[in-house]
Amino acid sequence: MPFPAAVRLVEVGPRDGLQNEARTLDPATKAALVDRLAEAGLPVVETGSFVSAKWVPQMADSAEVFARIRRRAGVRYTALAPNLKGFEGALAARADEVAVFAAASETFSRRNINCSIAESLERFVPVLEAARSASLPVRGYVSCVLGCPYEGPVSRRAVADVARRLVDMGCYEVSLGDTIGVGTPAKARALFHEVAAAVPLGMLAAHFHDTYGQALANLYAVLELGVATIDASVAGLGGCPYAKGATGNVATEDVVYMLDGLGIQTGVDLAKLVAAAWFAADAVGRDPASRVARARGRPAAQA
Amino acid sequence: MPFPAAVRLVEVGPRDGLQNEARTLDPATKAALVDRLAEAGLPVVETGSFVSAKWVPQMADSAEVFARIRRRAGVRYTALAPNLKGFEGALAARADEVAVFAAASETFSRRNINCSIAESLERFVPVLEAARSASLPVRGYVSCVLGCPYEGPVSRRAVADVARRLVDMGCYEVSLGDTIGVGTPAKARALFHEVAAAVPLGMLAAHFHDTYGQALANLYAVLELGVATIDASVAGLGGCPYAKGATGNVATEDVVYMLDGLGIQTGVDLAKLVAAAWFAADAVGRDPASRVARARGRPAAQA
Repeated sequence: MPFPAAVRLVEVGPRDGLQNEARTLDPATKAALVDRLAEAGLPVVETGSFVSAKWVPQMADSAEVFARIRRRAGVRYTALAPNLKGFEGALAARADEVAVFAAASETFSRRNINCSIAESLERFVPVLEAARSASLPVRGYVSCVLGCPYEGPVSRRAVADVARRLVDMGCYEVSLGDTIGVGTPAKARALFHEVAAAVPLGMLAAHFHDTYGQALANLYAVLELGVATIDASVAGLGGCPYAKGATGNVATEDVVYMLDGLGIQTGVDLAKLVAAAWFAADAVGRDPASRVARARGRPAAQA
Repeated sequence: MPFPAAVRLVEVGPRDGLQNEARTLDPATKAALVDRLAEAGLPVVETGSFVSAKWVPQMADSAEVFARIRRRAGVRYTALAPNLKGFEGALAARADEVAVFAAASETFSRRNINCSIAESLERFVPVLEAARSASLPVRGYVSCVLGCPYEGPVSRRAVADVARRLVDMGCYEVSLGDTIGVGTPAKARALFHEVAAAVPLGMLAAHFHDTYGQALANLYAVLELGVATIDASVAGLGGCPYAKGATGNVATEDVVYMLDGLGIQTGVDLAKLVAAAWFAADAVGRDPASRVARARGRPAAQA
């Protein structure tokens, strides 16, 4: 079997997920969700974002969320920090890791963060330098790796170039995001295969969206290559702003169910995770988007 | 690439799907759905079931549905016919193919069709004989191939035995059903690998349910083995009677999206299929269960 023996799951629901939900939660509820996820065994929980509240009002209270979480030994609580001001906020909040984000599509970069890909990378340089001084690991995100809502297909070479530059800058890991969920398994596999020629496979994470239902099949295809870090969002939190009514991030429960079935270790307790999914779904006011949470049903204690 | 160049899709929505929906459709609506599916390019459409109306009231009007469809050249309209009386009904309705169904789990067989696996197979003998005389192909279904709601795990050997016996009786194809959707990719692959030692792989079809979101990943895993016939249900019609609120059959649109992305031919026009999915979902009174239909949205002409 070519599969990794264990997969490291990066839970992105409290940040990437909640940022794209219609209902904004209060910091106490956000912190309670983070705590439930850590208790379920997730080793990395993306807890907040230190960006301008003007651009992302849902994350304006990240400092308070960080202050409220009950830190669990061994769990890494992370935050987005696209500039030096954000980095200082993350550092003050005692984030264990920060992340910067770039796109693989020029049009998406301009429309989403209002600058070219090259400019966005330059802006990260002081963040990476400050993080090095503070001994904080930095993760890089690349969006639109399997397609762009404006440009359509995105070249694998463009993705590999951005990933390589993020690593050259000092990122210890690069998460490749199928932001609009248009990828299918052979394309996902070909992408990771090509990027792995520029960046060691062990430094890559798969961040897939389930907009067209393909996320688990895509993950299976890259697991066959040996990819061993997967991003997922509890209850499938987070919609898709480019397709109304569509699903966003792949649900962590569905990923854990598949990995359990494949005999791949994650350290996650699926029953606790399903309970966290119902907690999250109730908080945002809708049913879980995950098939596992719906099939298992609401835990009796939460009924 | 080990993938098949083309996959033959067997659309089971109008029978397997509708049979498990809360709302029963009238025969004109059922026939309109069958016609839309045939027009979308599906080569095989399971159109009805000739079983006792006492057991399956949703299918009591199958003769009328068959009488109302506009037959399209090259499309095979099929029906379930578990006994001689049912076979005569299917023959009179001019079904192009009939199907019989057995389980791989003794407990499921007894609870679902009230007899042992061996008894169920014996009952099919006169159907197979009559079909041979009438030159009608017969498909065999095996349920619970990756798990049983009563027994839990099901042995691959038991599945292979039932499949082999159906072929020995004269079935030209055996569809292996993960009735409760508990399978994961490596298990699905191992099952097909083992059954293919008893029955040629080309005679096997994959019939997966999406209860735990695993169906597409499982299909991808068996496509890698060379499986080239896949059952699916438009709009994901059909729930799961063993998990309330859960998803049933994998949605045909989601399967076609993946196969299109893999470059595997199906002959299906995805836009027409999505339109048929919205027609079906409106008829049963809920949103499509398929992620593709939701992401694409309701076609303008049906808004």
